[in-house]
Amino acid sequence: MSQSEFGFRVLARDGAARRGEMLTAHGVVETPAFMPVGTQGAIKGVTYRDVEDLDAQIILGNTYHLFLRPGDALIARAGGLHRFIGWPKPILTDSGGYQIFSLAERRVITENGAEFRSHLDGSLHLLTPERAADIQLQLGSDIAMVLDECIATPATEDQARAAMERSVRWAGRGRQRWLALTHEPVDHPDVLVTNPGQAQFGIIQGGVYPNLRTESVQQTMAVGFEAYAIGGLSVGEPPEVTYDLVQHTAPLLPDDRPRYLMGSGLPDDIVEGVARGIDLFDCVLPTRNGRNGQLITKRGPISIKNARYAEDPAPPDPECGCYTCRHFSRAYLRHLYLAGEMTAGTLNTIHNLYFYLDTMRAVRKAIMLGTFEKLRSEFHQTFSRRTQH
Amino acid sequence: MSQSEFGFRVLARDGAARRGEMLTAHGVVETPAFMPVGTQGAIKGVTYRDVEDLDAQIILGNTYHLFLRPGDALIARAGGLHRFIGWPKPILTDSGGYQIFSLAERRVITENGAEFRSHLDGSLHLLTPERAADIQLQLGSDIAMVLDECIATPATEDQARAAMERSVRWAGRGRQRWLALTHEPVDHPDVLVTNPGQAQFGIIQGGVYPNLRTESVQQTMAVGFEAYAIGGLSVGEPPEVTYDLVQHTAPLLPDDRPRYLMGSGLPDDIVEGVARGIDLFDCVLPTRNGRNGQLITKRGPISIKNARYAEDPAPPDPECGCYTCRHFSRAYLRHLYLAGEMTAGTLNTIHNLYFYLDTMRAVRKAIMLGTFEKLRSEFHQTFSRRTQH
Repeated sequence: MSQSEFGFRVLARDGAARRGEMLTAHGVVETPAFMPVGTQGAIKGVTYRDVEDLDAQIILGNTYHLFLRPGDALIARAGGLHRFIGWPKPILTDSGGYQIFSLAERRVITENGAEFRSHLDGSLHLLTPERAADIQLQLGSDIAMVLDECIATPATEDQARAAMERSVRWAGRGRQRWLALTHEPVDHPDVLVTNPGQAQFGIIQGGVYPNLRTESVQQTMAVGFEAYAIGGLSVGEPPEVTYDLVQHTAPLLPDDRPRYLMGSGLPDDIVEGVARGIDLFDCVLPTRNGRNGQLITKRGPISIKNARYAEDPAPPDPECGCYTCRHFSRAYLRHLYLAGEMTAGTLNTIHNLYFYLDTMRAVRKAIMLGTFEKLRSEFHQTFSRRTQH
Repeated sequence: MSQSEFGFRVLARDGAARRGEMLTAHGVVETPAFMPVGTQGAIKGVTYRDVEDLDAQIILGNTYHLFLRPGDALIARAGGLHRFIGWPKPILTDSGGYQIFSLAERRVITENGAEFRSHLDGSLHLLTPERAADIQLQLGSDIAMVLDECIATPATEDQARAAMERSVRWAGRGRQRWLALTHEPVDHPDVLVTNPGQAQFGIIQGGVYPNLRTESVQQTMAVGFEAYAIGGLSVGEPPEVTYDLVQHTAPLLPDDRPRYLMGSGLPDDIVEGVARGIDLFDCVLPTRNGRNGQLITKRGPISIKNARYAEDPAPPDPECGCYTCRHFSRAYLRHLYLAGEMTAGTLNTIHNLYFYLDTMRAVRKAIMLGTFEKLRSEFHQTFSRRTQH
């Protein structure tokens, strides 16, 4: 039918770091980019007005959640996810693989796909690579992810190999189905393609084993996708292991396509990912931690409920330009959090998203100016993963 | 010490309805005005940015809640409530009388005041008319309410008289304390007056008995306040009874001062209150119902969780100009509500507050144009208190 409207170009380089532009059916995304997570069709705690004000250029939706509620067919009848949720800019949808993996004993994975029980009502469902493609075509995201098999950490090399090889076979099936629905002049009356300009990304697996990662790249690229993601990292292994595997894997991927490091999103992970040639990131941390009273600053996270902030008139981060820091004190935010006010979650989330998106702006600018290594070293001088006191 | 900066002038009249301007220490309020309720220092579900965008010119804070958490002394040390919560415009604080009345068996009321146990931790507290004045002076609201005694509905005339007479005695004590702290050159080291321009309002009680209301007006005006509120209505009696008592009481109050109908805030109550010379209203309904999935429209409330909205692409109210109605469908709002997304509460609350504040704008304009009776009759032709299906 129609061709993917997907494209990517590198505007500047600084070491392995790239400043790029990703073209999607719903507009351009400046990279390196961070994608706020909108699991159920909303970025938790904020409105799209906030998300746009914060300069998020692309958001992520969860296939697993939207499939169960309100359902991809309902969203397709409403004209697709963009129209249904009222967000006109780019959307990436994951494939549901990671969510189903997280269901633990509520799912059985076979060669055919993943059979699972809904966390909502216990109903039984089957997600195959074909169905994952269908659902995302009905959602009409700009970037669909192919279904992959995730594994527990630590995994033996045999376990990692088996899942990687299955992920490659699933990639072939998912791609075939996706191509049939988007590129062949055949009617599929059971699937409403709401975004003919969708792109589909493959996912590199292989656990912590560089040789498996290499094989996964070769075989997934042989299937052929618009671009590629690195999956199965930041799932419990030490950061150095993550970084080494990204360092190993990223250069094996096409230089002229964006590279997406899935779910890896502590602020230092992002800076280190960019340094190794990653272009796209997502993470629930800024939204989830915001609701839990954790505010992320250049020094690291602070826990706003701490008694030391009870009468602190300073904003969460005196250097921050976000709405929350420009208007509210730590003392007030602590009060709102302890009082259980929804507004606490909103104000904290606005701050955390601003921190992430502002970091991405600084990263992009530094790459353009050739000062990324300076930014990187300054970032690590102040930032700590541990909560500050 | 300093004089109250409080003032009021009537700009136009249409029958008993008045279009006025209330001057406070933190700016002018166009009346008739609706005050969104910010119980614990936040308007639930939204940020002050929303509240300002929606054109709320004054908000209400709850003395009872703020006294318990974070405490009036802490707020005073932070420079007062405006600075602590980051809202620079006018604030009215209630006296806590109604909240303590609502504690039922957790409180004992004596001539001295109300002894109560905190709903947070069971700790024992005493609120006297003097203490209610002190707390509000520490909060530094622009309008403080005197402590009154609320009663259950229905109440006998004897019960209503006893509470009304005690409220008058408390009014005298509360006013005396307030005058001592604001107008006498004596140091009160235990109370930090954070807003020397505060005004204090008296409260008319007397249950459903017009003769008691008349006596309450006479005796409360004999104490003398900057302005007066009508309390103890819309607490379970039929609307016609409320309206008759407002009709009876409002004209007895000074024509050159604003009149505040406390807690009476269904949309039709507001229109009928304005028709009887009321200038100020407050109600938790737009915020509380928003969080509960009730959206208020010109036809009446709609319950967004209703299955009939599952695929409804229309906004909650096609005639409404709010952010929610300009961007989102009933189908999406239903999905967010059923999915338990915080954003549902935010979007619904924005709509409901817009409905209230837009109604107030229309009311003010109609009074200026002499078309208030037309607005009133058109309002009642379409609006129903019952949930629409």
